[in-house]
Amino acid sequence: MNGLFRALGVDAKALPRTRPLYRRIVTLLEGGIARGAVPAGQQLPPERDLAAAMKISRATVVSAYRELEARGLVRGYVGRGTFVSAKPDAASAPFAWRGKIAAAALQASDATTVRDLVRAAADPNLISVAAGVPALDCFPTDAFQRAMNHVLATQGDAAWRHGPTEGLPSFRAALAHRFGGEPEHILVLAGAQQGLDLLARCLIDPGDAVIIDRPGYLGAIQTFRNAGARLVGWDVTRADTDELEELLLRYRPKLIYTNPTHHNPTGVTLPIRTRRELLDLAARYRVPIVEDDTYRDLALTGPPTPPSLFALDDAHAVVIRLNSFAKMLAPGLRVGWISAVRPIVDQLALIKQQVDPHTQNLSQLVLCELVEQGVLDRHLATLKVEHRRRRDAMAQALRQHVPAAQLRFSVPDGGMYLWCELPPAIRARAVQDHARRESVMVLTGDPFYVDQGGDHQLRICYTSQPAARAVQIAQTLARSLTAAAREAADPPAAVRMV
Amino acid sequence: MNGLFRALGVDAKALPRTRPLYRRIVTLLEGGIARGAVPAGQQLPPERDLAAAMKISRATVVSAYRELEARGLVRGYVGRGTFVSAKPDAASAPFAWRGKIAAAALQASDATTVRDLVRAAADPNLISVAAGVPALDCFPTDAFQRAMNHVLATQGDAAWRHGPTEGLPSFRAALAHRFGGEPEHILVLAGAQQGLDLLARCLIDPGDAVIIDRPGYLGAIQTFRNAGARLVGWDVTRADTDELEELLLRYRPKLIYTNPTHHNPTGVTLPIRTRRELLDLAARYRVPIVEDDTYRDLALTGPPTPPSLFALDDAHAVVIRLNSFAKMLAPGLRVGWISAVRPIVDQLALIKQQVDPHTQNLSQLVLCELVEQGVLDRHLATLKVEHRRRRDAMAQALRQHVPAAQLRFSVPDGGMYLWCELPPAIRARAVQDHARRESVMVLTGDPFYVDQGGDHQLRICYTSQPAARAVQIAQTLARSLTAAAREAADPPAAVRMV
Repeated sequence: MNGLFRALGVDAKALPRTRPLYRRIVTLLEGGIARGAVPAGQQLPPERDLAAAMKISRATVVSAYRELEARGLVRGYVGRGTFVSAKPDAASAPFAWRGKIAAAALQASDATTVRDLVRAAADPNLISVAAGVPALDCFPTDAFQRAMNHVLATQGDAAWRHGPTEGLPSFRAALAHRFGGEPEHILVLAGAQQGLDLLARCLIDPGDAVIIDRPGYLGAIQTFRNAGARLVGWDVTRADTDELEELLLRYRPKLIYTNPTHHNPTGVTLPIRTRRELLDLAARYRVPIVEDDTYRDLALTGPPTPPSLFALDDAHAVVIRLNSFAKMLAPGLRVGWISAVRPIVDQLALIKQQVDPHTQNLSQLVLCELVEQGVLDRHLATLKVEHRRRRDAMAQALRQHVPAAQLRFSVPDGGMYLWCELPPAIRARAVQDHARRESVMVLTGDPFYVDQGGDHQLRICYTSQPAARAVQIAQTLARSLTAAAREAADPPAAVRMV
Repeated sequence: MNGLFRALGVDAKALPRTRPLYRRIVTLLEGGIARGAVPAGQQLPPERDLAAAMKISRATVVSAYRELEARGLVRGYVGRGTFVSAKPDAASAPFAWRGKIAAAALQASDATTVRDLVRAAADPNLISVAAGVPALDCFPTDAFQRAMNHVLATQGDAAWRHGPTEGLPSFRAALAHRFGGEPEHILVLAGAQQGLDLLARCLIDPGDAVIIDRPGYLGAIQTFRNAGARLVGWDVTRADTDELEELLLRYRPKLIYTNPTHHNPTGVTLPIRTRRELLDLAARYRVPIVEDDTYRDLALTGPPTPPSLFALDDAHAVVIRLNSFAKMLAPGLRVGWISAVRPIVDQLALIKQQVDPHTQNLSQLVLCELVEQGVLDRHLATLKVEHRRRRDAMAQALRQHVPAAQLRFSVPDGGMYLWCELPPAIRARAVQDHARRESVMVLTGDPFYVDQGGDHQLRICYTSQPAARAVQIAQTLARSLTAAAREAADPPAAVRMV
């Protein structure tokens, strides 16, 4: 006790009696801690003892210790006492902000992949085939502008006021009419990613298992992982439903997430027989399916696209379907929707209401016009021609400029991606690094895997660049593959020394 | 054991040897459970015993029990055995959806107030003074349309592609220039409510205390409550900083949420001295302040509005400011922004990226034009005239048609609300019910309180209806107050009988 007063340089009995007294004690101790006279780890005298020594009430000492604790300078441990925990921050930085961040936010994976993708897609100095972007130069800007002007002239009042959380009735009706389902089974979203977040909040408790395509959409992997789910991969290219049943038995998952049509990243489309088996399993094991249906209308060639799981599910209502205008029109629009049974739409709307009371009305009204007037369908027909041209140009350029042994891929029937296999000796990250140095941005396979995987795979979004650029991209990739192969055979000194 | 086989009506040794064997056992038991032959609560034989009796491997029985458990029909308890838990659902309803909802989603308060508000505001048959809506008939539709057409003609490419999570650089620069702060300290939002959600996710761990205005914004109360915060009210109309210091000492809160300028719902504006004291306390106790500044530019009369806490906080960086275009332009636009130090903006952007990769580009580009060209400021000048007219009309109509003893209110200097006090004998809910039956929607005080309170208060949004409707609204309120008072004096039979 006397040591403490010596360290503080005061005489306990001669303390100035300024009020409130506890503030005086706080100031005194704060100063001593700041100067280091009372070092971190030192135990402070028990409240009762300090009160007796200073001839003040114990309550005053309790108040002082509490304030010091509130300031993060001391910490009390039940049964052990109060200890100095840290020096006060410099006045210019009152907050160690990191100390304020919630545990869940700190634990969340930092999601740099998606941010990098989005940043690269917006960087005019990069030729990006990384992010999933349709042919934006085909965007029906004139029709959009006409629809916008019409909406502003006739429905401005509906655009500016609050809208219902579920979405505007006219838009929900137009979506149901064009894409199937009932208007009241639709929840309009600010993009499909918002839908994933709402679904995770609605359905996932930490520790729940989720079965997800392997490889599968990286945004879904990230969202479910950050919600605390244990992710279990189902090999979507083999599409073995016996394997799925084993996973259902073994992991008892909360939901299955799959993208069965023009799959991202592999391009596969599950045949109707597999779809029916999937639905049977979901119904039998009572596990809902979240069907990512965002690529459905991007078929290019091949047989007619089989119906969605949602459409095949009339008897069971086990499917929650996720859609978006990002791939059909433009990712910058940020409009999507969920189709599901009423109990799920209602619960999701309750959550959405708290995070984003409703999706922007103006976008809903304009998209409603574009859907109803057939602009969307005419645009999809245009996209089909242009995307096919881009796919074929990219496939041909890669075949011509890259040795087949270094890059294997199948030409998909639809969607937006070439999923490319590298030889085991070449690391995808090395190829990505080399290509980026030449201002071409490709995506490695690893973020599409819930476990180890993808180190020797690349995803190329062939729709995002004009066909005229295919050769430049292929040549860059060829140089990058060669460089990466050379590096693997003859690693830099730092690697060899290990 | 033999009882079980009898109940199932089978001879264990004569079971058909169809493969896989475990499915046969599952079908058998599922049928027995469905028929009620094996009732809920009955213990199944230990796996080892059943395997021995059937002369099959224990692994087969384990698989069968696991599948039954996956189907929700039985449940295993470590050390106790496996028990029948439920009959299978009817085939037409494979899901008891409620059983799939995450615990946190079920616990979340159901937020009906906000949804009701939004629904009422969109209902053409209701005259709503409930939701907070500015004079939407003043919206600068022509200027908006010109800006939209200009953006579509010149920046369509930027509108359609992905944008950065933090917001478009030009828009962040325009916001910083007009509203203060630095562009890199700004995160663009899909509305202020999204900001509240991101802040709750970023800063609140369950059990954290949050100090919030009492009364205070109901959307903030709901968001922080659903994040698991303990809410502590600070009486914002008394604005006693000694009281605030006591709360800081007592509850050690994670943050303070306050709306110090044209406060919702009371209309008060904290004087600059109180603002400085608030900032001193926040810095001293290292508690960040979330400043809701959405009503700042809606001053009507009175002295100049004092600077925001954010603007006064240059030395400390303890303030996170929340803004929105909902009250300055229109709630349907869904655009807002947060201003904060870089560590907070970075962390919030990481979270935003997962829930909504970026706010719609087109809205950002158009609003950027409106801010830069002075359209917004000219509109705010128009709003000031119109809102003053509406405020004065509403205040005059209420004074003329409602007895002063039944409805007390002060006329605020700005913002959008009259905060009205009823006599203790009249319940706000009864008034609301009566008014709604006459197609006038008002808001009761209770959702603005973190604790008991508001049962005798009403909020009237005077900006949301034309001045010409003020008399009709006041007369409806007068009748509703009279009816509610009569009811209180002479409660309906059902109430009297209690």
